[in-house]
Amino acid sequence: MADRGQNGERLRGEEAIIHVLAPLAQGAPGAFDLGDDCALLSPSPGTELVLKTDPVAEGVHFLAEDAPEDIAWKALAVNVSDIAAKAARPLGYLMALSFPEAPAAAWMERFAAGLQAAQESFGCRLLGGDTDRRPGPLTITITLIGEVPAGGMVRRGAARAGEAIFVSGTLGDAALGLMLRKSPDLAAQWGLSADEAAYLIGRYVRPQPRLGLATALRQHASAAMDVSDGLAKDLARMCAASGCGAHVRLADVPRSAAVAKAVACDATLATKIAAGGDDYEVLAAVPESAAAAFRSEALGGGVPVTRIGTMSACSDVVVEDTHGLPLALERTGWDHF
Amino acid sequence: MADRGQNGERLRGEEAIIHVLAPLAQGAPGAFDLGDDCALLSPSPGTELVLKTDPVAEGVHFLAEDAPEDIAWKALAVNVSDIAAKAARPLGYLMALSFPEAPAAAWMERFAAGLQAAQESFGCRLLGGDTDRRPGPLTITITLIGEVPAGGMVRRGAARAGEAIFVSGTLGDAALGLMLRKSPDLAAQWGLSADEAAYLIGRYVRPQPRLGLATALRQHASAAMDVSDGLAKDLARMCAASGCGAHVRLADVPRSAAVAKAVACDATLATKIAAGGDDYEVLAAVPESAAAAFRSEALGGGVPVTRIGTMSACSDVVVEDTHGLPLALERTGWDHF
Repeated sequence: MADRGQNGERLRGEEAIIHVLAPLAQGAPGAFDLGDDCALLSPSPGTELVLKTDPVAEGVHFLAEDAPEDIAWKALAVNVSDIAAKAARPLGYLMALSFPEAPAAAWMERFAAGLQAAQESFGCRLLGGDTDRRPGPLTITITLIGEVPAGGMVRRGAARAGEAIFVSGTLGDAALGLMLRKSPDLAAQWGLSADEAAYLIGRYVRPQPRLGLATALRQHASAAMDVSDGLAKDLARMCAASGCGAHVRLADVPRSAAVAKAVACDATLATKIAAGGDDYEVLAAVPESAAAAFRSEALGGGVPVTRIGTMSACSDVVVEDTHGLPLALERTGWDHF
Repeated sequence: MADRGQNGERLRGEEAIIHVLAPLAQGAPGAFDLGDDCALLSPSPGTELVLKTDPVAEGVHFLAEDAPEDIAWKALAVNVSDIAAKAARPLGYLMALSFPEAPAAAWMERFAAGLQAAQESFGCRLLGGDTDRRPGPLTITITLIGEVPAGGMVRRGAARAGEAIFVSGTLGDAALGLMLRKSPDLAAQWGLSADEAAYLIGRYVRPQPRLGLATALRQHASAAMDVSDGLAKDLARMCAASGCGAHVRLADVPRSAAVAKAVACDATLATKIAAGGDDYEVLAAVPESAAAAFRSEALGGGVPVTRIGTMSACSDVVVEDTHGLPLALERTGWDHF
């Protein structure tokens, strides 16, 4: 278990914490080595900025015993995922860190290493932030600034009836990964190998934002958003924002080999594919005429996409189960309240 | 006492909370009525963006019994204050709200009213954000996006030896205001009228960012930052970042009539002027030759400024007390750790 402060040398003072984080700002001139009160960003001509803030808290979005590297990765990835679904590329981020107690030096070093790996993978840098101490869970609030060619942001609410509904990658991996994190014995029950279990857990702790989808989305998608609270819930949001409905077949929703194996052992897990959270895949509505080009451009960016259904003119959002019956959508997906 | 959730109708679901906040996004086209996953910002040609994030938490930055309007005001004001000290003007903000329990509808309405008043006063709008529920104190994390003519941001670390040190407004008001909030009986001990006590408390709960100082700072200041953790501590930060020292006379630090009265009753309060937090005034270093012009331009913007000392070539930061002796600066000012 990662020790955040109980043992070992603790970092005393905000300056000590900033010192550990400063290397993350290297190469970003407007971060001023984290030595100013604000960060400066010089937008490129012809671009617009896409902004997102999404906090993660211990006990809610990650577990206390998670590796500091993984906590850091996820805190950044969940924000980058939103930016990616808008067809933007991440430029930089601000980070507000709230600790219940002064963190151990070793924990902070590992946390910074995880951020370093994530920002190198996503192509962005730390621009500034704030660190404080207060009761309650460790909370990491990242605000991400992305860039998109002017007019290129893909909206949530611009889908139209008749358009093809696509989703990237596979769904349900992270939901099963979280179950495995909490109950490792499930792997055996589900007939999973150690590698398969590790794959699913990895999908939960290290989400991979679909940055390779930017060109395909910008060129072909009418609407897009990331899937973080479960397909059913997020699809319903896209439909509500767009003023249409959707018809999706659960059997068409892409699943990994590991999820397929688990569902074969326990059929009740199938709902996790439509209602489980933390997928961080991209949901997109694409005009029928552009569907093939979208698929091809997405693959060119290294991201497989799968058609799962069609936007409809009514307001119903129907996910048809494998028996052809509509899944009950009430209380599916994640809501904090 | 403001009731956040114990009684009355509670808001259920993130959508219900977003509904209360949506009017704050009116007039900001890139906020999409809070109906998209990200916000869009189109920077004006020839400008740069100045970015700041600073969370406030119940029990640390405000008190549970504070009026929701005041909590909202302060959450936005502390960020706008940083932007103002950089000579930028606020454009918009993202807000992450973390509640320990679903908030009461009446509390949220009052919180939104406070934000509305603050953003109208400061000239910015809500662009987007996130709401979640987790244990721990109510936390409001605002990320502010400000705008400055390209090259116009005033840095923290560009002060030079020999420059005049200025501070806006008066210092120590908020520190005494906080003491009065906690112990109302102090007003009588300090010989303050009800109006004077209310003035000091108002300075704590409703900080007024010095946006009127932008032109003066941009035209004349070498370096600037806001004073939020106490003059001594923030001046030391400016000196460290600039590679110089400073000599300041406590007797020259501007104080309000109410603070002067309190200090006359209790001389130990004088240190609050140099070490008390929550001032949200601006500290600036100005070349000697521009000092008069800076003062005049600041007044033109409605902000009185007072010269309190001089930047020095050595690395010492000396605040001379009224007896001509250096104040002990160790552990003055606020550090969370």
